[in-house]
Amino acid sequence: MKIVIVGGGSSYTPEIIEGLILRHDEFPVDTITLVDIASGKEKLEIIGQLAERMIDKAGVPIELTWTLDRRAALKDADFVSTQIRVGGLKAREKDERIPLSHGLIGQETNGAGGIFKALRTIPVLMELAEDVNEICPNAWIVNFTNPAGIVTEALLKYGAHKKVIGVCNIPYNMTQSAAEILQEDPKDVRIEFIGMNHFVFGSKVLVRGENKLDQVIDALVSQSVDFSPANIVSSGWSETFLRAVNMLPNPYHQYYFQKDSTLKKDLEAYEDNGTRAEQVQKIEEELFETYKNPDLDIKPEALEQRGGAYYSDVACSLMSSLYNNSQNIMTVNTLNNGAIVDLPHDSVIEVNCFITKDGPIPLTVGRIPQQIKADILMMKAFEEQVIKASLSGDYYDAYRAFIMNPLIKEEKTAKMVLDELLDAHKDYLPQFN
Amino acid sequence: MKIVIVGGGSSYTPEIIEGLILRHDEFPVDTITLVDIASGKEKLEIIGQLAERMIDKAGVPIELTWTLDRRAALKDADFVSTQIRVGGLKAREKDERIPLSHGLIGQETNGAGGIFKALRTIPVLMELAEDVNEICPNAWIVNFTNPAGIVTEALLKYGAHKKVIGVCNIPYNMTQSAAEILQEDPKDVRIEFIGMNHFVFGSKVLVRGENKLDQVIDALVSQSVDFSPANIVSSGWSETFLRAVNMLPNPYHQYYFQKDSTLKKDLEAYEDNGTRAEQVQKIEEELFETYKNPDLDIKPEALEQRGGAYYSDVACSLMSSLYNNSQNIMTVNTLNNGAIVDLPHDSVIEVNCFITKDGPIPLTVGRIPQQIKADILMMKAFEEQVIKASLSGDYYDAYRAFIMNPLIKEEKTAKMVLDELLDAHKDYLPQFN
Amino acid sequence: MKIVIVGGGSSYTPEIIEGLILRHDEFPVDTITLVDIASGKEKLEIIGQLAERMIDKAGVPIELTWTLDRRAALKDADFVSTQIRVGGLKAREKDERIPLSHGLIGQETNGAGGIFKALRTIPVLMELAEDVNEICPNAWIVNFTNPAGIVTEALLKYGAHKKVIGVCNIPYNMTQSAAEILQEDPKDVRIEFIGMNHFVFGSKVLVRGENKLDQVIDALVSQSVDFSPANIVSSGWSETFLRAVNMLPNPYHQYYFQKDSTLKKDLEAYEDNGTRAEQVQKIEEELFETYKNPDLDIKPEALEQRGGAYYSDVACSLMSSLYNNSQNIMTVNTLNNGAIVDLPHDSVIEVNCFITKDGPIPLTVGRIPQQIKADILMMKAFEEQVIKASLSGDYYDAYRAFIMNPLIKEEKTAKMVLDELLDAHKDYLPQFN
Amino acid sequence: MKIVIVGGGSSYTPEIIEGLILRHDEFPVDTITLVDIASGKEKLEIIGQLAERMIDKAGVPIELTWTLDRRAALKDADFVSTQIRVGGLKAREKDERIPLSHGLIGQETNGAGGIFKALRTIPVLMELAEDVNEICPNAWIVNFTNPAGIVTEALLKYGAHKKVIGVCNIPYNMTQSAAEILQEDPKDVRIEFIGMNHFVFGSKVLVRGENKLDQVIDALVSQSVDFSPANIVSSGWSETFLRAVNMLPNPYHQYYFQKDSTLKKDLEAYEDNGTRAEQVQKIEEELFETYKNPDLDIKPEALEQRGGAYYSDVACSLMSSLYNNSQNIMTVNTLNNGAIVDLPHDSVIEVNCFITKDGPIPLTVGRIPQQIKADILMMKAFEEQVIKASLSGDYYDAYRAFIMNPLIKEEKTAKMVLDELLDAHKDYLPQFN
Repeated sequence: MKIVIVGGGSSYTPEIIEGLILRHDEFPVDTITLVDIASGKEKLEIIGQLAERMIDKAGVPIELTWTLDRRAALKDADFVSTQIRVGGLKAREKDERIPLSHGLIGQETNGAGGIFKALRTIPVLMELAEDVNEICPNAWIVNFTNPAGIVTEALLKYGAHKKVIGVCNIPYNMTQSAAEILQEDPKDVRIEFIGMNHFVFGSKVLVRGENKLDQVIDALVSQSVDFSPANIVSSGWSETFLRAVNMLPNPYHQYYFQKDSTLKKDLEAYEDNGTRAEQVQKIEEELFETYKNPDLDIKPEALEQRGGAYYSDVACSLMSSLYNNSQNIMTVNTLNNGAIVDLPHDSVIEVNCFITKDGPIPLTVGRIPQQIKADILMMKAFEEQVIKASLSGDYYDAYRAFIMNPLIKEEKTAKMVLDELLDAHKDYLPQFN
Repeated sequence: MKIVIVGGGSSYTPEIIEGLILRHDEFPVDTITLVDIASGKEKLEIIGQLAERMIDKAGVPIELTWTLDRRAALKDADFVSTQIRVGGLKAREKDERIPLSHGLIGQETNGAGGIFKALRTIPVLMELAEDVNEICPNAWIVNFTNPAGIVTEALLKYGAHKKVIGVCNIPYNMTQSAAEILQEDPKDVRIEFIGMNHFVFGSKVLVRGENKLDQVIDALVSQSVDFSPANIVSSGWSETFLRAVNMLPNPYHQYYFQKDSTLKKDLEAYEDNGTRAEQVQKIEEELFETYKNPDLDIKPEALEQRGGAYYSDVACSLMSSLYNNSQNIMTVNTLNNGAIVDLPHDSVIEVNCFITKDGPIPLTVGRIPQQIKADILMMKAFEEQVIKASLSGDYYDAYRAFIMNPLIKEEKTAKMVLDELLDAHKDYLPQFN
Repeated sequence: MKIVIVGGGSSYTPEIIEGLILRHDEFPVDTITLVDIASGKEKLEIIGQLAERMIDKAGVPIELTWTLDRRAALKDADFVSTQIRVGGLKAREKDERIPLSHGLIGQETNGAGGIFKALRTIPVLMELAEDVNEICPNAWIVNFTNPAGIVTEALLKYGAHKKVIGVCNIPYNMTQSAAEILQEDPKDVRIEFIGMNHFVFGSKVLVRGENKLDQVIDALVSQSVDFSPANIVSSGWSETFLRAVNMLPNPYHQYYFQKDSTLKKDLEAYEDNGTRAEQVQKIEEELFETYKNPDLDIKPEALEQRGGAYYSDVACSLMSSLYNNSQNIMTVNTLNNGAIVDLPHDSVIEVNCFITKDGPIPLTVGRIPQQIKADILMMKAFEEQVIKASLSGDYYDAYRAFIMNPLIKEEKTAKMVLDELLDAHKDYLPQFN
Repeated sequence: MKIVIVGGGSSYTPEIIEGLILRHDEFPVDTITLVDIASGKEKLEIIGQLAERMIDKAGVPIELTWTLDRRAALKDADFVSTQIRVGGLKAREKDERIPLSHGLIGQETNGAGGIFKALRTIPVLMELAEDVNEICPNAWIVNFTNPAGIVTEALLKYGAHKKVIGVCNIPYNMTQSAAEILQEDPKDVRIEFIGMNHFVFGSKVLVRGENKLDQVIDALVSQSVDFSPANIVSSGWSETFLRAVNMLPNPYHQYYFQKDSTLKKDLEAYEDNGTRAEQVQKIEEELFETYKNPDLDIKPEALEQRGGAYYSDVACSLMSSLYNNSQNIMTVNTLNNGAIVDLPHDSVIEVNCFITKDGPIPLTVGRIPQQIKADILMMKAFEEQVIKASLSGDYYDAYRAFIMNPLIKEEKTAKMVLDELLDAHKDYLPQFN
C-alpha cells in the first residue's frame, strides 16, 4: 500500500508520519512518498530526513521517498493526502493583513482572506485531481487543505476524480472537549453535527446513545470547566446565545456572532504582534530548526502548539477506516446526498459518515433547525459562488462572492479589498489574468 | 359592494378614498366603512369628515360611515383593507431609537425595529382574519400594513382566512422610475421581480417585451438621470455593485449592502433631528390640521410628501382588478407556489401575478440568481423565525430572530436591544407576558 | 417576417397557411418557406401549389417558396414550425400494429408506439435545433411534432437552441368543449391545466374568474350534452371516476384508466379496419387528390375530418402572440420553472402561460393534487427515460423506458415488442445501430 | 425490561419468544406480556402456555403473562411489538378472493387486498399509539404488522407516539440469499437498499466493502444457483430485465413487472386450492394443534414453513440493538429524512440505518436511479393516498387509492371491487360507516 503526501514539506508532516507508524499494524503502509514544489525543496528534505529517522526508530517496514515530480510520485498510489498552501505563509499574511487594514475580519478561512485562499487553491487541486484520475484512478484523495469544505465541494462537483474526502480537526476537537466536560471516554461520545466545514454546529452529544447536550451547555454557561488550549468549544458565549441556539457552536462562529468584538481583538493583536501568519512564520522557522536536529527521531512536542493539531491524525484514521472497511462513524466533508434536507444534494457538508471501503455514507441529519437555517443556507450559497469564481476567474464573480459574505457585504469596501487582494496575489491567480 | 378600511383613521386614508372615487366607474363601490380603535377616535372623525366632503365633491354614489366596532363594520364586506400601526408613531419611535442607541440600524421594517413591528402587528391581524372569516368569508383582505411581506406570510400560513394579498408601493415606484429613465409610458414597462417585500430585485425591465435592464443600469451608473424624491431606484450604488448584481436593487437594500455608511448617516440624522418617527409625527400633526379644514374636499398635495405614496393607490388598483377579473399583471405579496424554485412553496414572496376574480396567480420566476441567493434564502429563513416568535411569544424565539438578522447578529448586543425593546413595547406584546 | 414550415409537405399545411392568411393584419408575414425531405418532394409540390393559390385568392402580400434545402430555407427565419413524421405513416402503422399484435395498446403517442415515435423524432429535431441556432438564432421553434411534450423537453434540456415552444390542440379543444357545455364564448373560458402533454387534466374551468368545474362535471355525468366529434372531453367516464378525480380528463386518459376496454375496442377495430395509420393513409391519399385540384384555392373542409384539427391554428395564434407581445394566456409546452412544485424545474409541462415577446412565462400551478400525483410523477420519470434512450441509443435505456411505461410494464413482453420495433424501424434509428 | 407483544396470540409468537430466549444474555428481558383481543382468547392461551414451557425449558429468568387488557399490559413497557391481523385470516381471504374474482391481483399487501388490509389496520394501530404515548411514553413500538411500510408511515406522520419502527423480513432474506449465492457469511454482506417496504430494490451487494452485485446478477441469470424456498431473490426474471434494472428485485416485484403471468398463475392456484388465506388457515390450524402438545417446549420446525419466517427474529435483533446502543446497520422502515433525495423527507422508506439507543438513523441513499424512479414515486404517492383514506373514511379517497394503484387502475372495475370489499369488511371499517 502506498501513500502520497502532497505538500509533504509541510511542518505538519511529522504528525501524519507518526500516525502512520502508530497504526502500522492495522494499516500496513509499504511506501510513503512526500511531494512538494521546487520552492519547498529545502523544507521537503528536512522533513524527509526527519521522517526517515522516525520510521527507522519505530522499526516499521515503510519505505519513504521524497520528490518534486508529482506525476511520478502518484504512480500506484492508494491514498493521496493533500496539505498544500499556495503562496505559502507570505500569502496568508496578505489574506489577513489586507482585510484588517480596511476594518474587515482578516482570517485564513473566513471572509475575504478565506475567499482568496480558495481562489488560489482550487485550480491547483483541480489539476492534481486530473493527475490522480489518470495515474492512480483507484486512489482516495484525502484533503486537509483549507478551506477544506469549499475545496472538497469544488473537487467533488467539478473535478476529474470523484474519490475525494475532506477532513478537519474541528469535529474531532469538539468531541474531545465534550468528552472532557462530561468526563467520558471520547470513544463513547458521538456528536451529531449539522452544517459545513468551519460552520458546523453540534446538535446532540450522545454518550452511549443518550443525549447529554444540556449538560455540556450547562457547563459552558457556568464556565465551571477549564479548557485546555486545544479545546474548541469556546466558553466565551453568552448564556442566552447558547440556550437559544441550543447547539454547540465551533470557535469559528465567533467571526459571525461576535464579529465586532472579535474584529476589535484581532485589530489590537495585529497592531501589537502583526498577523497570525507572521507569528506562524516564526513558529515554523523554529520548528524547522528543531526538525533539522539529526538526533530528533520522533514528532517533537512543539508541533502540537502549532495549531491544527490532530488534523493529520484524523486523516490517518480515515485512511485506515477506508482500507479496513471499518464501518465506523467519522465526521468528514463529503457530498450531502440528502443528509441535510434543505441543502442541494450535491453540496459538500461536514457530516457523520459510516466509513466503508466503498467510501463514506452520510447518516441523515434532516431539516436544518430554524435558528441556524438562515446562516447555513447563506453560507452554502456563498461557498458555491466562491467555487464559481475560482474556476471562472471572472472579476464580477469574485466581487459577488465578496458581497455575499457576511464578513464583507459592504459594496464599496468590497471593491477596495478585492482589488488590493487581486493585485497582491496575482502570481497565484492565473485564472484572473 | 362594500369596502372596510381597518385603520381608517390613518393619514393615508384620503389617498385610498381618492383612488376609489377616481375608479368609481370601473369599480363601483357602494359603501366605505372606516374602522379604528378607541384611541384613534379623534383622527377617525377628522378623516371620516374629510372623506365625506371628498365624496360629496366628486358626486359619486358612495355611502361612507365610520365606527369603532370592527365586527359590525365587517358585515357584508367584499374587501377589507388593513393599514394599522399597533402602538402608533410612538412605538415606531422606539423601534428606531433603541437600536440606534446601540449602534444598530433603527428602521421601521428592517432589523430590530422591523422585527418588533411584526411582533406587535401579527397577533392583531390574526384576530382580524378570524373575524373576517366568520363575518364576511368571501371578502379579500388587502394588507398594506408593514412589514407587509412578513405579515402576509403569517396570515396566509397560520391565519383563519386565506383570501389575503399584501401590497407595497416599492415595485410600483421602481416601475415608474425605470419608465422615467427610459422615457417610456409606465404602462409599457414590466419589471420582472425576484425576492420578497422590501428585499426585492428587478431582474428584467421589459418594454413591450424587450429587456432594457442594461439601459437602466447604464443610466444609474452614469447618473445622467436626476431622480425625484419619490423615485426608488436610488442612484447611490457603485458601478461595480450594479454590474455584478445585474439587477435593480430597491432602496431598502442600502441597509444591507451599505450598512456602515447608512448607519453613520442615520446616526447623524438622529442626533440632528431625532428619529424618522418623530419627524413623521410632526408631518402627521400638520396633515391632520390640514384635514380639519372644512373647505378641504380633495386629497391635499401635502400627503404625497408623507412617504409611502401610491401604497393605497396600488391597493385600489388591486381591488378593482379582483372585482373585474381584469387578468392584468400586478406585483403583490402572495404565496410563492413554486414561482421561485428555491423557496418553500408556502413562503410569501413579492411577485408579478396574473390577477383574476379567483385571486392572484404568480408568474413563475425560476431559480434565484446565484449573486442574490445567499441573501434571499437568509432573509426568508429569518422572516419565518419572526413569524414563529410573533405567535409563540417565546423569548428565545425572539432572540433567535435577532441573531438571524444580518443587521443585528452580534450575540450580546442582540440581548441588550431585545430586552430593551421588549420592555418598551410590553403593552403591545401580550403574547410575551 | 419570415416563417419556415419544416415538414411543409404535410397534409395539415393548408390549415397553417389559412391561419397565416386570416391573421395577416395582426401578424404580417412576408415570406413562408415550406421545407421537406427528398422522399416528400411530390407532396411538397402539391402543397406548395395549393398554398400559392390560397395566398393569391386571399390577396395578401405573402411570398411563398418551397425547397428541399433546409439550411437555405432557415436563413432569416423569425419562426420555424415543425410538423414532421419520421418514417411517415408507414412507420406509424408499425407503431400501432406491433404492440397490438402482442396485446398491448398500439398508439401513436402512448405506450410502445409513442416511445418509438420519440426515438425516431428527437435526433432529427436535435439536428434542426443546431441549424436554427447557427443560421437564425433569434427564431422561435414552434413544435407540433408528436409526442410534443417529450420532444419539447428533449430540445429544451439538451438541444442547441433554447427558443422552443411545444403546442398541442388538446387544451384548445378541451376549452372549446367546456365552453360549449356551459354555453359560453370560449374567449371567456380559461381552464387551469395540470400535467403534461397528452396527460393533462383541467383542474378549474374559470368563466370570467368563476370556477364552473362542477357544472361541467355534472353535464358529463348526466350526459345531457351531446358532443360533436371534435369534442375532446369524452363523456365515457363513470360518475365515480369524474367525482373522485374532480378534474377534467383528456381523451388520452382512456389508455390509462380504461386500458382493458380501450385495448379490446382497438383490437376489434384493428381486425376490422387495420390500424389507424392505415385509415389515415387512405384519408391522406384522398386529401392529396383534392389538393391537386387546380381550382381549389381554400383549405378544403375535408381536412377538418383528418383529426388533429386546430393544431396548426394554435401554432399560428402562438406565433402572433409572440410577435405582438400580446401578454395573453395560452396553454403551451414549456419549462416547468417551478409552476408545478412537485416536478423538476427543468421538466417540460403543458401549462397556461403569459405570452410575451420575451417568451412564455408559466403561471404557477402549485402542488399536484394527490389523486393524480402518482400518475403525473410516474409519467414524467418515464418521459425522462425516453429522452435518455433517444439520445444514448442504448438498448437497455430503451428497455427501461418500456418497463417504466404503464401500458407495457410486463418484463418479458417488453423485450419481444422492443426487439420487433427496433428491427422494424432500424432505418430511422441510426443511434441504435 | 419489559416487552409487550400486541397480537400475542399469533402463530408467529413462538419465534419471537425463541428470539428473546436466545438473546437473553445481551438483551435481558424481565417480563413479556402477550396481549390479544377477546376473539383471540383461546389462541392466546395456547401460545401463552407454549411460551411458558419454552422459557422454563431454557431456564432464563423471564416472567411471562398474557391478558386481554391492553392498557394494563402496556404499563412500564420498554418495547411494544405489534403483529396484529384485523379481521383475521377470514378477512385476508376476502382481500384475496374478491379482487381475483374480478381478474385483479388478490394479495395480502399489494393491490386492492393490500389497500384494505391497510384500511382496517391503521385505525387500530393509531389507537394503540395513543395508549402507548399515554401509558409508556418511552417505549419503542416495533411494528411488523403488514403492510408494514404504509402502517409505519401512518403512525410516524399522524400518530400520537413517534418512537415507531417498522420491520420486514424481505431485506433480511435478500441478504441471506445473496450471501448464499456468493458463498459468504451473511454477516459480511451488506446490501444497499432503495425503495419502500415490499417494493425495495438492492442497488449494491457489498462484501467487506466491495460491490458484488454483478456476480449475484450473473448467478441469477445463469440460474446456476438453486434457491431454497425461503430464498427471496427469485430467479424467475429474464436476463434483460435484470441487466436493465441492474438491481436486485424482491419477490413482490413480480406483481408489477410480471403481472399477467402472476395473475394467471394465481387464478389457477385459486381455482385449484382456493386463496392463500385458506391454505394458511389450514396450516395455522395444524400449527395450533402442534402448539397444544404439552410436551412441546421449543419453537416447532413447522413454523418455518409458515412463510414470514425471520420477521420476528428481525424484530428481536432490532430491539436488542436499540437497547444496547449497538451502532450496527439494520434495514428498517423509518422516516426518509432526506436519505432518498427524491422522496418527501417525512415519507417512510425501507433503508439501512445506524441503530442507536436514540433510534435508527438512515444512511443516505441519494437520487433514485432513473429506471425505478417512475415506480417508486408512483408507489409512494399511492401509499400516501391509502393512509389518507384510512383516516378520512371517505369513499372517494378509497376510490382514488384504487385508481392510483397500478394493479387496479381500471376506473370501472375499481368501483366494483371497492364496493364489494367495503361491504365485505364493513365490520372492520367503522370509519367508512
